[in-house]
Amino acid sequence: MNIELINTGAELMLGRVLNTHQQWLCRQLADMGLVVTRQVAVDDSASAISQAVQEALARAPLVITTGGLGPTSDDRTRDVIAALLGRKLHLDDAVLRQIESYFTARKRRMVESTKVQALVPEGATVLLNAFGTAPGLVIEAGHASHCDLPQLLVMLPGPPRELRPMFTNQVAPLLKQRYPQQTALVCRTLKTTGLGESLLEEKIAGPLQPLVAAGLELGYCARVGEVDVRFAARGELAAKLVAEAESLARSLIGELVFGADEDSLEAAVVQSLTERKLTLATAESCTGGLIANRLTNVPGASVVFWGGLVSYANEAKQASLGVRAETLAQHGAVSRQTACEMADGARQRAGTDYALAVTGIAGPTGGTADKPVGTVFIGLATPGETLVQRHLNPFDRETFKWVTSQQALDLLRRAVSGLRTSA
Amino acid sequence: MNIELINTGAELMLGRVLNTHQQWLCRQLADMGLVVTRQVAVDDSASAISQAVQEALARAPLVITTGGLGPTSDDRTRDVIAALLGRKLHLDDAVLRQIESYFTARKRRMVESTKVQALVPEGATVLLNAFGTAPGLVIEAGHASHCDLPQLLVMLPGPPRELRPMFTNQVAPLLKQRYPQQTALVCRTLKTTGLGESLLEEKIAGPLQPLVAAGLELGYCARVGEVDVRFAARGELAAKLVAEAESLARSLIGELVFGADEDSLEAAVVQSLTERKLTLATAESCTGGLIANRLTNVPGASVVFWGGLVSYANEAKQASLGVRAETLAQHGAVSRQTACEMADGARQRAGTDYALAVTGIAGPTGGTADKPVGTVFIGLATPGETLVQRHLNPFDRETFKWVTSQQALDLLRRAVSGLRTSA
Repeated sequence: MNIELINTGAELMLGRVLNTHQQWLCRQLADMGLVVTRQVAVDDSASAISQAVQEALARAPLVITTGGLGPTSDDRTRDVIAALLGRKLHLDDAVLRQIESYFTARKRRMVESTKVQALVPEGATVLLNAFGTAPGLVIEAGHASHCDLPQLLVMLPGPPRELRPMFTNQVAPLLKQRYPQQTALVCRTLKTTGLGESLLEEKIAGPLQPLVAAGLELGYCARVGEVDVRFAARGELAAKLVAEAESLARSLIGELVFGADEDSLEAAVVQSLTERKLTLATAESCTGGLIANRLTNVPGASVVFWGGLVSYANEAKQASLGVRAETLAQHGAVSRQTACEMADGARQRAGTDYALAVTGIAGPTGGTADKPVGTVFIGLATPGETLVQRHLNPFDRETFKWVTSQQALDLLRRAVSGLRTSA
Repeated sequence: MNIELINTGAELMLGRVLNTHQQWLCRQLADMGLVVTRQVAVDDSASAISQAVQEALARAPLVITTGGLGPTSDDRTRDVIAALLGRKLHLDDAVLRQIESYFTARKRRMVESTKVQALVPEGATVLLNAFGTAPGLVIEAGHASHCDLPQLLVMLPGPPRELRPMFTNQVAPLLKQRYPQQTALVCRTLKTTGLGESLLEEKIAGPLQPLVAAGLELGYCARVGEVDVRFAARGELAAKLVAEAESLARSLIGELVFGADEDSLEAAVVQSLTERKLTLATAESCTGGLIANRLTNVPGASVVFWGGLVSYANEAKQASLGVRAETLAQHGAVSRQTACEMADGARQRAGTDYALAVTGIAGPTGGTADKPVGTVFIGLATPGETLVQRHLNPFDRETFKWVTSQQALDLLRRAVSGLRTSA
């Protein structure tokens, strides 16, 4: 089944923003068994949107658009599609009241132009927006030649925090109901960290070959500091195939797997600590708060996370963590000894079970022959001992911080789970 | 001039990776005055690529593709385009030697299949790849009906670290030379925070109308917690129009403008502190390290940023910041008084000029009638006084954290710059 995604917005064509909608929606749809066959981005002019929608409707029974439903003059998707399909727009009282209450709840004044978002094309179903003012719209639009059902045109608002819950809570159930055969896909992703894509493939591709021959789809996706292994299958044996694949893969690379599907490493760590009633503090130099930030993105983190110290200046390492001046003078701020004292100091001061510390050279300057840019020491104080790992992450500043935070969280995950912790 | 970008790859359609090529290439091209009119992503099947290229060539004098030039069986762009244009492929000795030397230099064995990358369509210009093995290709392909020049088809390899230098060093100069008129664009973006898109438009759209009538392009791009205002113009008066627009906009909304073009709020704050030789510490509860993380993404932040405390637990607020137990008991952890004591405590303990503190209810639980989920208090201790702002940010957890960090950094920006600081 052809599925087309149309992203609108001058900011996309000007390269001002990343098109995160493409990845997110393609991912959600693919995991439901609905693979997008073409994604198009055009600016928000009426002619560009109209042409793109017309072409998509000529090819695909399901077309999804993002953006252009807001209140400003460059929000044209609603009008353009209504015109294209010959549907009149009417002011929907329920939508208008919902928009008004959104402003009232926030004690904000509602600008007159905002009301345009309550205009609904004839015959459209409204997707109420729980996180913003522009509702989404679903329109049945004629017949695709090769399909029994009318075509479906789904219009979603541009802001991700509005689009995502609207898709998950309202659009996904609708699509599952409408396309029961296509959405009968069994899909499972294992999330791994600690090994590159090729080495991971080398470990599992051979043993999984018989399952692939039996119909299993096997895919890898490498991101910064982690690799996804994806299993998918259709048909009667799908669930069995995917379960066997997961079990076999876990027997081969189980220690590298920190979660599945939507899991994040930080959530896995928080869950692992919560289950064991353990507490954590952090002491970050080169990651500058990224580890604490990732941990506190996890709902419920406050149960296990005491807090952290971002000790960017040397004085902060001494004052807040009790790192000794001699240690800094003799071994330097980026050293095994400093990482160890940071972790110990944080654990002692916070009174937690674990404390995770990082110190390193993010660059672009500050490297030496002994300790080049990208050198990092990760310390983990545990109830029994204090571990220190050394890594070399010679990347740009933000990638360096991310990779380092992955390594630190993974060290903690392994220690808490009783896995091997040598670097 | 129509310009189309075609990104190929099954991983894009499955939503496994972000299409960073789109943003990067669109941005590079737009800043040269060449705005991409349509971007299409398709999987790497021959039929999908062929159809997408054919449609693009029917509309656009310039078509750029990414991906599918490598040595594996799913790299089909070269073959598909040669077939589409009826060009024979020949083995190019110079390219082959370059690929061989790439392997020799890395002491790696060259697999036979790698040679396919030295196949060049008749009449194509080769773009040598300094960072990989797949060369890029440029082909002149017939005439677009509305253009004097032959159409241009540029094929770039998929890996970003190969594509980007190839575009910058070889493709951009070629395009500037070929399209001198189109590449004469003047473009300027003002970055703002503190007001929504509609209210911002309400303030400036009217006054800017005469400039728009004279040829100014005016656009808005709303992101979480900030809005871009973009001015662009072409022709003789372009520079004057854009400068007048910027000046007029600054006179109307100047206090909301924290930077221009590529500036980030955190970089603006670091720069502002650096210029004034001022130092900063942070004390974060509900933002959990995000503010420190953003500040430390800025190269050179260590000059002004002492470090921060992430005081997630109440005990952390008391132990690390000296917030009094009575204050927490009487007013609660989320209160004007606690924010004030957190900021004062951080400033005193760190010995910095400023200290920024945030405490709030990220949710989803923990709200009361008085202080609903999303309530946040931002404290700023300055050499003269301690300011506290109250905000309501009723969003999901990560959006809440981001918006709060924007408000906190903006309060600091305003205080440092001597602007109004009432919420």
